Amino acid sequence: MKHFSKEDISKMSSIYRLNMINSCTGYKSANLIGTKSKKGVTNLAVFNSVIHLGSNPPLIGFILRPRTVARHTYENLKDTGGFTINHIHYSQIEDAHHTSAKYQENTSEFDQTKLEEEYKIKIEVPFVKNSPVQLACSYVNEYHIEENDTLMIVGQIEHIFIQNEILEKDGWLQLEKGGIVAINGLEGYALPKHLDRFPYARPNLKQK
Amino acid sequence: MKHFSKEDISKMSSIYRLNMINSCTGYKSANLIGTKSKKGVTNLAVFNSVIHLGSNPPLIGFILRPRTVARHTYENLKDTGGFTINHIHYSQIEDAHHTSAKYQENTSEFDQTKLEEEYKIKIEVPFVKNSPVQLACSYVNEYHIEENDTLMIVGQIEHIFIQNEILEKDGWLQLEKGGIVAINGLEGYALPKHLDRFPYARPNLKQK
Repeated sequence: MKHFSKEDISKMSSIYRLNMINSCTGYKSANLIGTKSKKGVTNLAVFNSVIHLGSNPPLIGFILRPRTVARHTYENLKDTGGFTINHIHYSQIEDAHHTSAKYQENTSEFDQTKLEEEYKIKIEVPFVKNSPVQLACSYVNEYHIEENDTLMIVGQIEHIFIQNEILEKDGWLQLEKGGIVAINGLEGYALPKHLDRFPYARPNLKQK
Repeated sequence: MKHFSKEDISKMSSIYRLNMINSCTGYKSANLIGTKSKKGVTNLAVFNSVIHLGSNPPLIGFILRPRTVARHTYENLKDTGGFTINHIHYSQIEDAHHTSAKYQENTSEFDQTKLEEEYKIKIEVPFVKNSPVQLACSYVNEYHIEENDTLMIVGQIEHIFIQNEILEKDGWLQLEKGGIVAINGLEGYALPKHLDRFPYARPNLKQK
């Protein structure tokens, strides 16, 4: 195996280190977060840091760098209190990745890609049309990660929309049936194939 | 599409809600976190919440419920200041999942599964043998998520070990080449296949 120490990492070129550190913790969730500004301009940005925080209440978290392209997402969700999380279908990866380009705040990523806005019930922020799983969330709180000046946003799930074929009888979403991708590092996209699902693990009765 | 509102979610049975909310944010990283107690008992537990926080310094985060099976992981990493993160190979998923069973603190999950301890350089906490990517991390900080009494642990990467065939020339890890899995919900395991990797996204020169 190749070995890199903390000293080796500190001496890497910034691009080499960015590639390695972003991919060395494993596959990430692939989501498009949709928001709308007070002026009515929609925004869409790809995120690979959405995590599960708890089921009851249904809480999620994601990491934001307030000074990067994600700034519009942050400003909008603070202004309106809401955002959507949209899973990425394998046919959408090129456009999903393009939402990471730095556009001005009066430009909507929906106008710069083939991704289309979708509105449902009375929710004012846009969903991504044909996204296999769509969540509408409300802003709950934020935690400042002082070690590197990032924010963890905490959101509550208000509505879930799921393509029929993905939902199993016991509430579990079989994501492969939706053609949903995972992210490898910052800009690699992969399509997972289901291997197995295990029951709740209980201790062995006998020592091995 | 099927639609579930906040009210629908609150009325679900706890198992149905657990399954849905854990799987509705997309694929998660699949990692085994290794620690050792002050008494020298090793511990291994599967986590699906490890995220990237930053590259320079190289920081990661993960979510912990201090009152669950992850309690031993928490006590050990606080006591010793260190832990390892080990990617899960597809041949290891059944044993990896079994580490979520609730064992007493004097029992090592390494003794209850076929997973083997591996020690390298002068690191005292165990790695998982044959894990394709292994990180040694130091405890940096923790943030209490007051909404549901969870903790986000922040760790710094001290050492990275990578199987030779996974590492690309520019520092990116092509995780498919390591047979590394992703997690779908709490207990579904999937094997991703690489689709594409895109360059740094720049705005379109012309409006579409």
